[in-house]
Amino acid sequence: MKMPENDKQSLSMVTCTAPVNIAVIKYWGKRDEDLILPINSSLSVTLHQDQLKTTTTIACSRNFQQDRIWLNGKEEDISNSRLQSCLQEIRRVSRKRRNSGDSTSDVSSVSHKVHICSVNNFPTAAGLASSASGYACLVYTLSQLFGVESEQLSAVARQGSGSACRSLYGGFVQWKLGEQLDGKDSLAEQVESESYWPELRILILVVSAEQKSVGSTSGMHTSVETSQLLKYRADVVVPSRMEKMIRVIRERDFPAFGELTMKDSNQFHAICLDTYPPIFYLNNMSHRIISLVHHYNQYYGETRVAYTFDAGPNAVIYTLQDHLPEFVQVVRHFFPPEVNGEEFVKGLPVCSADLSEELKRDINMEPTPKAIRYIISTKAGPGPCVVKDPNHHLLGADGLPKKSAISD
Amino acid sequence: MKMPENDKQSLSMVTCTAPVNIAVIKYWGKRDEDLILPINSSLSVTLHQDQLKTTTTIACSRNFQQDRIWLNGKEEDISNSRLQSCLQEIRRVSRKRRNSGDSTSDVSSVSHKVHICSVNNFPTAAGLASSASGYACLVYTLSQLFGVESEQLSAVARQGSGSACRSLYGGFVQWKLGEQLDGKDSLAEQVESESYWPELRILILVVSAEQKSVGSTSGMHTSVETSQLLKYRADVVVPSRMEKMIRVIRERDFPAFGELTMKDSNQFHAICLDTYPPIFYLNNMSHRIISLVHHYNQYYGETRVAYTFDAGPNAVIYTLQDHLPEFVQVVRHFFPPEVNGEEFVKGLPVCSADLSEELKRDINMEPTPKAIRYIISTKAGPGPCVVKDPNHHLLGADGLPKKSAISD
Repeated sequence: MKMPENDKQSLSMVTCTAPVNIAVIKYWGKRDEDLILPINSSLSVTLHQDQLKTTTTIACSRNFQQDRIWLNGKEEDISNSRLQSCLQEIRRVSRKRRNSGDSTSDVSSVSHKVHICSVNNFPTAAGLASSASGYACLVYTLSQLFGVESEQLSAVARQGSGSACRSLYGGFVQWKLGEQLDGKDSLAEQVESESYWPELRILILVVSAEQKSVGSTSGMHTSVETSQLLKYRADVVVPSRMEKMIRVIRERDFPAFGELTMKDSNQFHAICLDTYPPIFYLNNMSHRIISLVHHYNQYYGETRVAYTFDAGPNAVIYTLQDHLPEFVQVVRHFFPPEVNGEEFVKGLPVCSADLSEELKRDINMEPTPKAIRYIISTKAGPGPCVVKDPNHHLLGADGLPKKSAISD
Repeated sequence: MKMPENDKQSLSMVTCTAPVNIAVIKYWGKRDEDLILPINSSLSVTLHQDQLKTTTTIACSRNFQQDRIWLNGKEEDISNSRLQSCLQEIRRVSRKRRNSGDSTSDVSSVSHKVHICSVNNFPTAAGLASSASGYACLVYTLSQLFGVESEQLSAVARQGSGSACRSLYGGFVQWKLGEQLDGKDSLAEQVESESYWPELRILILVVSAEQKSVGSTSGMHTSVETSQLLKYRADVVVPSRMEKMIRVIRERDFPAFGELTMKDSNQFHAICLDTYPPIFYLNNMSHRIISLVHHYNQYYGETRVAYTFDAGPNAVIYTLQDHLPEFVQVVRHFFPPEVNGEEFVKGLPVCSADLSEELKRDINMEPTPKAIRYIISTKAGPGPCVVKDPNHHLLGADGLPKKSAISD
């Protein structure tokens, strides 16, 4: 357990990073709103932190008067109930370990106040939910500071944001719904590591959003209250899909993986529509991307590319390395980017490719200029990491955000 | 049974009209594709023919060499299997009646070839499915020509287009799914007549369509094949909704009627999304109309207006007479019509109304100009009618379409 020494002896500080995850079997609906227990299991792919991550520095000191938090350079209210859940829960677990003499580190810090500073390396405008990486990073960093073992963390992160528990592992991760009333068995676990399927590649198509959507917390609450189809999905459809999804990942069977991913995304959005009043996360551009993917796969007579959409209009595309350059070129052709704008494909480099006239003709869609703002190219990646270089701390020796963290 | 006499003694000719119907509990999915037997019961409101109707003239003569059909002025292929189903079935029923000595009219005509001429008084561009009124009118007109009693017609019309059976009655009509394998009990029946709830008013908001949608026949086929949620809807959700819908119509309980109508429309579109590949009938404009309706109802704290959408982006609005003028003004405000265009509200006159600033502010939507092309204002209406005035026949004494029918 690393405890970086600071100028002021009384200050302990740790910095960690945590990844975003994108579900392929969707989580939608809680059976317990306080403990954040889901009505069905879910499964996600952890994205690589080279492209998307949250970085969090936490300092604790007997000199701090109160817990404080800065998010993306702005101080926020620490009394937020989910933040409080995480802080209380990790302190409780840490004290329990200390009392049982199980701890390997100095845990006097658990009684001190903390300063938390957290930044995302992706713009909010990208429309990616930052709560999963954010709470995973918070909880992981606290665990490093207080010396809590990682197998207990997923239940703590879950109480910050349900899907955050899945961001505690790399690669392919399931969140088992569990059976216990107290949620002790509602935990994330790794299905396969990020190196298991290296050919798998991921694209995030950031579309030009028109309007703000319903937040996922209130959306899933309304769905549980009003959708007659949701219970059937949770009880009957998802259990068999979870089994199948784990099997096709282990078999690295892309066509089956892709088809099931698309079907589950569609069913999640169907449930949103069956909610009253209905919730729409997909817009006309999402519809066009869905249509493009189906036309592309149809052209080849196999599922080479798959989409999934969370609580917003952006598409996340799964494909294999071999098909990536051509598909990116297809996107570029049918959604011509704004010229003179920022680079269209960010992240992992994508080779260029030529499109056959036959393919363009067969897809038979009218190009829609500027509908996609940019693409983030990435792949599966590892779980949270400790950042060892103290230069990367977001808090200074005074326990306050460094200028660079504020201007971020 | 009327058999208009023509100049040529050998020519019998009848003209009838039939209405469009709009389902409030949706029909989606067949258990038998040949007999057109549905997987769930459905319920609709028959629209008034003053605004929307199909008119069909059928002549039969021993001099005709073959069956022929003209639709909206253009001769079409009579060998279409659904047309053939209706023709064969009505001839079979008519012969059976003749053989049992049950017929009240001259039925020698049943062995003659027919000429069919049919026109809609609404443009195809209105995006209203004309198959229901079209097949209802065809079958009703044939029944008048061949002397078949009306209680047998709904099973014949159903074999042309499922929802056509509901257009054989006025007012509120249910199509019971039935249990028999041969479909003999899969019939439409009137729940209440068009005069039962005179305050009920109907608006069709014709939106500017972007692209052609998947046809309902192939769409529902794909849904039955691929949607895991559809069976649950048909077996569990719809039976209790049918009971409830009939009850709230009998009680003229608009808030309950409106809410159930909206929920069932949303669930139908949810099933379309759960289909693989997914089917989208709602576009961004449909989403905006849905949002407007919910905001409007929220403002008043009660369901004053309800939407329903069929296999296309146009909205059908149900409301009560008292709320109609204000809601039309709300639509006009948030979807400003094209200036200098054709009249915005067609059909039954709507009084003008003023909108309070508070209402406009509370709805809080950005106006979308020209998104709605026009509104058809109508109400519940009667079932098919015989047109007695021979001047209204669409076929001339020569058995061919009159010029006016062609230029229509």
